[in-house]
Amino acid sequence: MAPAKTMQSTEAREAASAGISPVERLHALVASDMAATEKMIHERMGSAVELIPTLAKHLVDSGGKRLRPLLTLAAAKMGGYRGQAHVSLAAAVEFIHSATLLHDDVVDASTLRRGKVVANIVWGNKPSVLVGDFLFSRSFQLMVAADDIQVLNILANASAVIAEGEVMQLRAANNLATSEEDYLKVIKAKTAELFAAAAESGAKITDKGPGYTAAMRHYGQSLGIAFQLVDDALDYSGKQALMGKAVGDDFRESKVTLPVILAYARAENQAKQFWKRVIEDGTQSEADLERAISYVEETGAIRETMARARHYADEARKALADLPASDIRAALADIADFCVERAY
Amino acid sequence: MAPAKTMQSTEAREAASAGISPVERLHALVASDMAATEKMIHERMGSAVELIPTLAKHLVDSGGKRLRPLLTLAAAKMGGYRGQAHVSLAAAVEFIHSATLLHDDVVDASTLRRGKVVANIVWGNKPSVLVGDFLFSRSFQLMVAADDIQVLNILANASAVIAEGEVMQLRAANNLATSEEDYLKVIKAKTAELFAAAAESGAKITDKGPGYTAAMRHYGQSLGIAFQLVDDALDYSGKQALMGKAVGDDFRESKVTLPVILAYARAENQAKQFWKRVIEDGTQSEADLERAISYVEETGAIRETMARARHYADEARKALADLPASDIRAALADIADFCVERAY
Repeated sequence: MAPAKTMQSTEAREAASAGISPVERLHALVASDMAATEKMIHERMGSAVELIPTLAKHLVDSGGKRLRPLLTLAAAKMGGYRGQAHVSLAAAVEFIHSATLLHDDVVDASTLRRGKVVANIVWGNKPSVLVGDFLFSRSFQLMVAADDIQVLNILANASAVIAEGEVMQLRAANNLATSEEDYLKVIKAKTAELFAAAAESGAKITDKGPGYTAAMRHYGQSLGIAFQLVDDALDYSGKQALMGKAVGDDFRESKVTLPVILAYARAENQAKQFWKRVIEDGTQSEADLERAISYVEETGAIRETMARARHYADEARKALADLPASDIRAALADIADFCVERAY
Repeated sequence: MAPAKTMQSTEAREAASAGISPVERLHALVASDMAATEKMIHERMGSAVELIPTLAKHLVDSGGKRLRPLLTLAAAKMGGYRGQAHVSLAAAVEFIHSATLLHDDVVDASTLRRGKVVANIVWGNKPSVLVGDFLFSRSFQLMVAADDIQVLNILANASAVIAEGEVMQLRAANNLATSEEDYLKVIKAKTAELFAAAAESGAKITDKGPGYTAAMRHYGQSLGIAFQLVDDALDYSGKQALMGKAVGDDFRESKVTLPVILAYARAENQAKQFWKRVIEDGTQSEADLERAISYVEETGAIRETMARARHYADEARKALADLPASDIRAALADIADFCVERAY
């Protein structure tokens, strides 16, 4: 396998220099399916109970890139799917994601998500829990509409795994003994599983068979892991503007992410005491964030987190290697690189 | 239709005097199915993530009567069902109920549920949300195992309706302008829908056809409404020991339940001011609960709430009228009466 740097296609470099991201390219390649998905999302988040669409709209229209439903649509289209179930499934996937975000808002003390005030600060914890439940229920109604029990199984399993991942993450908070392996388990479950299931579902409804389904699942999972690694690295970088997300969210919640695990492992005595105080005891002042950022940079923890992300982006690209060349395949491959490069 | 009092069967009176409730009779009639359901519930709440079974067990083993899965099993058995899907469905129904309770714990400030400290006081809000999500996901996995997309549709719809009901309830809190009609909408959605869907699902998998399914749905819905009306009346009665539930929960959360709606409608000026303060402004001292209890009793609000419950219990009984006589049918009919009589 050629090293990562040389793997980026000429096409991707050209598009990048033209200011078009591979995510935008993929959106253009499935534009009519995505339009139908958007329509379905907005229709199906409706309810006679006014607060539900109000709160759901706040989240659904807050500028997310629809990466997950995009994977479903791309996998279906690349596999030559001709029916309509992919649109319901893509909407279902986005609803699962939205429900998770709403429930995350209850859980987390983040003040910014995608640059907007999170829902629970505006409306309180209770509506976030309940509207999340509503969207989660809607996602299953949409899966029923797709009328494929095997795909339903994929997404029901994914939902259970995501919840397990979130609970694992909760248990790992404040715990500096969390291993890199534990951390990887958490992000595989809480983040990568939905990417994997989204791509797998879109592939499953085609007639391309188990090899294609497995390849797309592997692509989605690898991309999801890379995506989360980059997210966790960015939480210790100064790129809030780029992300529309508050830097230091993980730090303030004493989450033990890979940058912390690596920085702690390499810490001298004084730094070790610092990490124990801010992560294990959870005793922090705002100035501590800057110190934490220095530590993760000085110890090479960010660089190494990004190297891991690069490894999984390469895995994602490799998962596509045996599939016939197409514009969608090229865009998916470039998205893997883009996901890592957005951090530089 | 004969008046309610004379509708109770001789059999039911005899069983009552022998200390056997009709719920226990029904349990005995589907004993092996219920044993299989219990086994499945305990297996399927398992997870390698330790906190999940710990917290789920706390809730699942806290002495609930399994009324909802009982309806599923009874409807399947009474309809002559011979397969195994009813057990998965009954477990799925109980998981939906458990997930709702866990999310309710986040939402409500109740300190007691079934006589135990609620989960979120022991473990915090976050695990309650996430373990609820896990159980909810498990319920869909169980439905997939039952492999009947129409039944899945019934339960997915029910889940969405329940969430809508909970949000409606949230909006009705503090609002003394809530009408009896609004209140009925809320309890139909948040409580009666799962009773209805539980009975409907069990009926749907039999070969008795749409008439049977509709009758069982109507039975479940009417029973659920009666059940919630009684629950709301009991919240203003001194029967905590009987219920294992803290009296005054609804009051402390300024919920506008039927006893409050009726008492407020009949209140003199001074009492109106009282209700405005404790419900609309939410300004309360512990002594106010006693005063509220006096008001709901003096105005006949409790008596009338119970009369409404009696009406719906009669509706439940009537829904069964055209079905062939059987021990299960008799037990279901008596449960409707029992549900109301537990409050006297």
